[in-house]
Amino acid sequence: MTYRLWYWPGLQGRGEFVRLPLEAAGIAYEDCARTRSVDALVENMAAGDRAPFAPPYLEHDGVRIAQVANILLYLGDRHDLAPAAPADRHWILQLQLTIADMVAEVHNIHHPVELGAYYEDQKPEAARAAQQFRTERLPKFLDHFEQAAGANPGVWLIDDRWSYADTSLFQLVEGLRYMFPRRMAALERDYPGVIAIRDAVAALPGIAAYLASDRRVPFNTTGIFRHYPELDGD
Amino acid sequence: MTYRLWYWPGLQGRGEFVRLPLEAAGIAYEDCARTRSVDALVENMAAGDRAPFAPPYLEHDGVRIAQVANILLYLGDRHDLAPAAPADRHWILQLQLTIADMVAEVHNIHHPVELGAYYEDQKPEAARAAQQFRTERLPKFLDHFEQAAGANPGVWLIDDRWSYADTSLFQLVEGLRYMFPRRMAALERDYPGVIAIRDAVAALPGIAAYLASDRRVPFNTTGIFRHYPELDGD
Repeated sequence: MTYRLWYWPGLQGRGEFVRLPLEAAGIAYEDCARTRSVDALVENMAAGDRAPFAPPYLEHDGVRIAQVANILLYLGDRHDLAPAAPADRHWILQLQLTIADMVAEVHNIHHPVELGAYYEDQKPEAARAAQQFRTERLPKFLDHFEQAAGANPGVWLIDDRWSYADTSLFQLVEGLRYMFPRRMAALERDYPGVIAIRDAVAALPGIAAYLASDRRVPFNTTGIFRHYPELDGD
Repeated sequence: MTYRLWYWPGLQGRGEFVRLPLEAAGIAYEDCARTRSVDALVENMAAGDRAPFAPPYLEHDGVRIAQVANILLYLGDRHDLAPAAPADRHWILQLQLTIADMVAEVHNIHHPVELGAYYEDQKPEAARAAQQFRTERLPKFLDHFEQAAGANPGVWLIDDRWSYADTSLFQLVEGLRYMFPRRMAALERDYPGVIAIRDAVAALPGIAAYLASDRRVPFNTTGIFRHYPELDGD
């Protein structure tokens, strides 16, 4: 059965962390809210038992699975997108969860005090959050992922092939480059292992084809990573 | 081999979500930073490959596992603290990850613009974040968990026994009661399923003994849930 992915259309958002390994592995899926409508998403999400708190979620064989890391663990187990040995399997999940933590902090930058309001209603607060993120949190997270990359002899985070944590790290770098072009330009040279993973993911045939397709929605200021020039800096 | 848990001493924090199922199931563990020192934690965390981004983490059989949901999945698989059938196993992990999302939002309330600064340096921003959390996010999350509780015929989130998501939901309610006593007093009657799980967890012999022991550090204003009266409201 084809996987059905449900996520807000028109932005990459957290759904992109699910799309990427599906595209890289050539696994068939329907991006349901894009082929149908937002109304269909809202209706589907509320229906039945075990409604998820939020998209993205996957429907497969009568099961609904939400939360990005949970979805990736499910796909990883079924399609061998991560090692099976417990220590390695939990290491990859751990990296994925740390990426998710960073993504949540990124979202918090443009919505520091009111998730339900607009960025325009919290610009001074966002400027302060961006300042400390750029100077403290961003290098701290990238240090961690660089160290993780260095713990494996090959280019990938583990073994000699990509896992779902590699495709997620690619998306993280792409998002940060879009949101903070000046800051990333200044920092990237310090993270050769992270950038090598980003480049290796971009070169995977499935990903290269995806990035060249119209299925890859461009980054924009309705997603998680948002380019507001006033929030960037060297 | 006894599990070694590493987490900041002196506060419950995210470590508590790991302690609770260990205590409930009577699984032996050493709370290392408490028996040793913060310096020992900092030194241990930085040592070796695959250093975690942050505590808590567990050491077991030469493996280090960080990220609460990842630790709980590991413990759940080894000690039968959650169902083994994939659909149910992923449902419990999904609930755990949604609890983790809420915990991150709770932390953001008292540190909305600078994670590395003090609450006292961001009080007006925290007041605004608390206001929208109390009125919008808190009921939205509790609605979700109430619906999840209602999806299972028994008192627990799944089947007829506790899982690690139940002990986490207990901790969430306890933390929210400490942080927002007025708001929770006004809201709780709307969430009988959630409160029934909280009560059932508190009555587990292992948890009752733990709560009565000095191993349960009281909530305080260095943890994630912090009681600042000015952030509460009906």
